[in-house]
Amino acid sequence: MDQTLREIGEEAKKAKYRLELLGEEEKNRALYTVAGALKEKEEEILAANEKDIQNGVEKGMHEGLLDRLRLTPERIDSIAVSLRQVADLPDPVGELLDEYDAENGLHIRKVRVPMGVIGIIYESRPNVTADAFALCFKAGSAVILKGGSDALNSNLAIVKVIKSALSECGITESAISIIASTDRAVTAEFMKMKDYVDLLIPRGGAGLIRSVVENSMIPVIETGTGNCHIFVDESADLDRAVEIIVHAKTQRIGVCNALESLVIHSAVKDRLLPRLKEALEKKNVEIRGDERVSSVIDCVPATEEDFGREYLDLIISMKVVDSVEEAIAHINHYTTHHSESILTEDPSHADKFLKEIDAACVYVNASTRFTDGFEFGLGAEIGISTQKLHARGPMGLKEITSYKYEITGDYLIRR
Amino acid sequence: MDQTLREIGEEAKKAKYRLELLGEEEKNRALYTVAGALKEKEEEILAANEKDIQNGVEKGMHEGLLDRLRLTPERIDSIAVSLRQVADLPDPVGELLDEYDAENGLHIRKVRVPMGVIGIIYESRPNVTADAFALCFKAGSAVILKGGSDALNSNLAIVKVIKSALSECGITESAISIIASTDRAVTAEFMKMKDYVDLLIPRGGAGLIRSVVENSMIPVIETGTGNCHIFVDESADLDRAVEIIVHAKTQRIGVCNALESLVIHSAVKDRLLPRLKEALEKKNVEIRGDERVSSVIDCVPATEEDFGREYLDLIISMKVVDSVEEAIAHINHYTTHHSESILTEDPSHADKFLKEIDAACVYVNASTRFTDGFEFGLGAEIGISTQKLHARGPMGLKEITSYKYEITGDYLIRR
Repeated sequence: MDQTLREIGEEAKKAKYRLELLGEEEKNRALYTVAGALKEKEEEILAANEKDIQNGVEKGMHEGLLDRLRLTPERIDSIAVSLRQVADLPDPVGELLDEYDAENGLHIRKVRVPMGVIGIIYESRPNVTADAFALCFKAGSAVILKGGSDALNSNLAIVKVIKSALSECGITESAISIIASTDRAVTAEFMKMKDYVDLLIPRGGAGLIRSVVENSMIPVIETGTGNCHIFVDESADLDRAVEIIVHAKTQRIGVCNALESLVIHSAVKDRLLPRLKEALEKKNVEIRGDERVSSVIDCVPATEEDFGREYLDLIISMKVVDSVEEAIAHINHYTTHHSESILTEDPSHADKFLKEIDAACVYVNASTRFTDGFEFGLGAEIGISTQKLHARGPMGLKEITSYKYEITGDYLIRR
Repeated sequence: MDQTLREIGEEAKKAKYRLELLGEEEKNRALYTVAGALKEKEEEILAANEKDIQNGVEKGMHEGLLDRLRLTPERIDSIAVSLRQVADLPDPVGELLDEYDAENGLHIRKVRVPMGVIGIIYESRPNVTADAFALCFKAGSAVILKGGSDALNSNLAIVKVIKSALSECGITESAISIIASTDRAVTAEFMKMKDYVDLLIPRGGAGLIRSVVENSMIPVIETGTGNCHIFVDESADLDRAVEIIVHAKTQRIGVCNALESLVIHSAVKDRLLPRLKEALEKKNVEIRGDERVSSVIDCVPATEEDFGREYLDLIISMKVVDSVEEAIAHINHYTTHHSESILTEDPSHADKFLKEIDAACVYVNASTRFTDGFEFGLGAEIGISTQKLHARGPMGLKEITSYKYEITGDYLIRR
């Protein structure tokens, strides 16, 4: 594990040329073997995790973070289950995307190929270590992981088990590498390794993602941040609107597809707001409203800054507008391009909202909480892209592949 | 034209919401109007270009660069022709990429949408100004141009004509903007405008592209650099091999798909090299060979550095190998992931080469010179991507679009 960054890069690059040639069965057998090995070596992994937990407790880490860090036999079970689920998904590599004869006489095939080497920078969730490996491996790529330093012992133990299981299957151990240094300068250097790494995916909070986007020379897929809105149009069914809103805000407050900001048509504010206030207060949600919201219910005054925030907390911002156009303009101004929803009975407003909102996932009469690879039927998820390049919204196996043109001719020369 | 960068960004962002709603006919009519206007205002454009040429001559610019910079009535004709060609291509926006009912009851449509705002940083080729606008506009995006300072007068004149023609068609002039500053700090700032620009495409030499990749916070598609190889396998038809090699090296030496490096199977070196030397010398091509090449023909000794170079000149590097595996390893080491070709009569070698070479376009028995959007039947080209993210190889209209998910439910809540 005391490889230098460059050595890790060289090994991963060598590995990618071997991984892209693996057949589907070979990959699936390896994933099942890894799943079994993680359960078999559970004690070693839990012992390493215990060290991380002890260090966390000594550093005064708060319970939410400790919970994310903690592994249990049940959590290792579910890691193993998800490895097998990934194995059971169809192999994206080799899919024929297009095939035609060009006018010049060339026969052109556009074929799905692995990305090559994928880097993942993430925070202290040791389950990501195995999950990210499984997805990259099934998609034919080598993965280089840089996890949070608080989870280092857990991650090293998991990677050790994976490498050994791969080796047992006759597959290069360099299919997975981990950067063991906790030095920030090493992370900065990693983000510049464009000659070795084809794609970098940051997974974590807004600060981590911003830092990667600003500093990486490797192509990045920006993930995660979700300042998600629901717009309640004048024609919405208010009973069902209240139910969707309360659920989308409170079911899981820490996730990127949770509702953060509500936009309300002025025609329904007097009927909707008191009921919403009552329902949200029961769930201990703080409402921060603009002046027109405050004119109907007691609430904390919302600042400009509130409308731009992803709270990930029991707080919701609210704004009143006079038209679907105003709602769209407001949402497009504050959107993080993740998920936005309209509740309406008016098909022309629904259509306008779908077309004009600039987000990965735009909903009519549904919760923003659905933005998820499993809900979309992708069978897996490595993150939710909030950029427009390459992949948008939930990313499964296909979204971490590339393509190439395979072209044949009869000693053709361009005229 | 004295807008600040931020104002340009704000205006382009506003424009993108209007451009994405334009219909195909509206866009085509506008492109035809622009094409007509460029011919009508030809004198103004040529006068502005003359200023750039005079400045170039005074600065001692060499003839190759002056030629790239120069506009003539014929060149303006061909700009107008290519605008009309882009108009005649099918509109990529709105294409339904996928449609299904998810298990949770949602109806999901995956729809092709415009990228939004595209930035183009390029060198002193004023024809790019109109071409890049046409492609971005037809693909529903606003474009912000930063051209080479040597072409500034020409570019400003062209942009002025385009804006006025758009305005005539009732379309926002902010569909096209140009950064008129020649200050490098402004370009550096432009590359950080990720809140306004969705995609940045550098077009030009290796230095420009490297600078954009290293400094941009906006997602980039890396284009252009092509250290293209041909591998002559032991079974290749040598008569036809000589013809392909000489043509790929000499037809146009300054283009990214020109042949730069030849890899030769040892079994054919004695028969092939003398004939190649004779043919290439007639075209004044300098050969830089490794020791095994020098053992057969007189040539300049190749250094390690030679194998990594894109000469764009009458120079070719040559290396002898003993197997297709060694050829693949050599090419994968030095490739710029652009275009690589094998000449062979052995189907298993052809297949191995197609699968294992890590490049956008991999050829069997054809010249690397075919890598081009028109040759591929895309009808247009904004550049050739050498990265794996988003688009690979020739990029036409579809390659500068994104997609979104439009999702409808019946007040669905995630369970």
